[in-house]
Amino acid sequence: MDFVTISDIETAAGRIHGTAVRTPLLRQLWVPGEFWLKPESLQPIGAFKIRGAYNAIAALSDAERERGVVAYSSGNHAQAVAYAAREFGIPAVIVVPDVTPRLKVEATLRWGAEVREVPIAERESAAYAIMRERGLTLIPPFDHPDVIAGQGTAGLEIAEDLPEVDTVLVPVSGGGFASGVGTAIKAKCPDAKVYGVEPELAGDTAASLRAGERVSWPVADRARTIADGLRAEPSELTFAHLERVLDGIITVTEDEIRDTVRALALQGRLVTEPSGATAPAAYLHHADELPGGRTVAIVSGGNIDPKMLADLLA
Amino acid sequence: MDFVTISDIETAAGRIHGTAVRTPLLRQLWVPGEFWLKPESLQPIGAFKIRGAYNAIAALSDAERERGVVAYSSGNHAQAVAYAAREFGIPAVIVVPDVTPRLKVEATLRWGAEVREVPIAERESAAYAIMRERGLTLIPPFDHPDVIAGQGTAGLEIAEDLPEVDTVLVPVSGGGFASGVGTAIKAKCPDAKVYGVEPELAGDTAASLRAGERVSWPVADRARTIADGLRAEPSELTFAHLERVLDGIITVTEDEIRDTVRALALQGRLVTEPSGATAPAAYLHHADELPGGRTVAIVSGGNIDPKMLADLLA
Repeated sequence: MDFVTISDIETAAGRIHGTAVRTPLLRQLWVPGEFWLKPESLQPIGAFKIRGAYNAIAALSDAERERGVVAYSSGNHAQAVAYAAREFGIPAVIVVPDVTPRLKVEATLRWGAEVREVPIAERESAAYAIMRERGLTLIPPFDHPDVIAGQGTAGLEIAEDLPEVDTVLVPVSGGGFASGVGTAIKAKCPDAKVYGVEPELAGDTAASLRAGERVSWPVADRARTIADGLRAEPSELTFAHLERVLDGIITVTEDEIRDTVRALALQGRLVTEPSGATAPAAYLHHADELPGGRTVAIVSGGNIDPKMLADLLA
Repeated sequence: MDFVTISDIETAAGRIHGTAVRTPLLRQLWVPGEFWLKPESLQPIGAFKIRGAYNAIAALSDAERERGVVAYSSGNHAQAVAYAAREFGIPAVIVVPDVTPRLKVEATLRWGAEVREVPIAERESAAYAIMRERGLTLIPPFDHPDVIAGQGTAGLEIAEDLPEVDTVLVPVSGGGFASGVGTAIKAKCPDAKVYGVEPELAGDTAASLRAGERVSWPVADRARTIADGLRAEPSELTFAHLERVLDGIITVTEDEIRDTVRALALQGRLVTEPSGATAPAAYLHHADELPGGRTVAIVSGGNIDPKMLADLLA
């Protein structure tokens, strides 16, 4: 297994400069202790995914890149690939399930991508077919070293801005973000602890780390959580990284996630999606399971349905 | 008249480093044109006021500072002075009208300040009495060169992050923020235009600039706007700055402000107060009155009443 290195992440940081926002650390004074948020919700597409997608496309050869890219996703990864492709001026095809809400399809179309709507079961095969037919490169949402290295740039920024950080909280889904951030933190701040955070209803990674091997949960089970960005499972590659870089997993409930979306809006002045509030929820509701000290929680994204946001604030 | 200089603002920038957040410029891709927000709503107290308050306290002699400071305000300036005083470990007395909502009093008490509630008409005289009795220094909300220089650091950051900026939009109330930001922009980016933005219902500065002298509006008139942070009027000092540095004033309606609070939450993922949404409202609703080009609007603050936010999003 080839692990992503801090040098890969530093290279990625040079590439994404000027495209991804260098998000600040925001000290939160309304909670006890020394606690900061890193608001990836303020990236151009509203989520950290732009870091990995842009780095993966930047890492292609000129010839590959000019032919274009393809991705299958209905969420933040779709928008990230579409946005990054537009930045490079290259074609992008995004394959989405035909049940995808219109709003999400339009958000992807906005960046000039070609959107193909297919039955949900054919999503992956359709993407591979398009890839072969048109000579496009597939940009996966997490299972790729260049994607992991790109996501890791968020960890590098934390290490630069707060070298004396004690604890970093990062959400876990497919595991690319936690793999990259954990790799950067462990390289730059070897004494700091890195915790993954999962919804209880999509707690496959906690189960897998306990078992020492990947334990798969049925898709229908993982789909129960309100945190719709945290329903994927680690790949072999990301799981190997997580076993190396995570000091533990914190599990949060649906009510804790909802409460945190509300608190981050009213106290932190940030609009977050449920997946984005998951890591902060670990600090707000499970401080007793954490080592304490200077703690940073990453807000992974802010693409929340307007009605859900209004309901959570009412 | 002594004008604040770019050198004063650069000195202030050195002082506030590590206390005020260096807020990023956030490109907004959901509107036409090249448009960025500078989210001062993400400062520790939720507003730009920390810049001026901290700089003014930092500029005191050691002896003055140790005796402590006093301010009269029920809004973001109260919190800014209380917070800055705590950072220096010095006493702060905040004089507030006895009709101030409990939530705002508590927000100030949180930072360890002593809060004195007095009848609204006695607010200013009470502050001066406390100042004399206890040898405290009064930190005014805008009518002071050190406050103006501190607020100007936001403009300096814009010039550093986007040296090719064409247009800067900044809200105007007492005029300290617009004076400082305008001074910094005109010094660093002499070709850029700086526009003040006011609510139509508190449009005294537009009237004053047209008249070439300060035109006062009755307090009751200015109190009509939902933008409760924009109800003050410029002083002689700030008005002289505004005449020098502003290229014009854009006037926005109450509905445009409300619409912009909603849009910034749903599209920009930022929680803003009505005053904070006022400068962005000028870009969203009055682009035809602006010169165009690369435009930055400053979001001055995010301290919105939770019920108002929920209502605007529903």
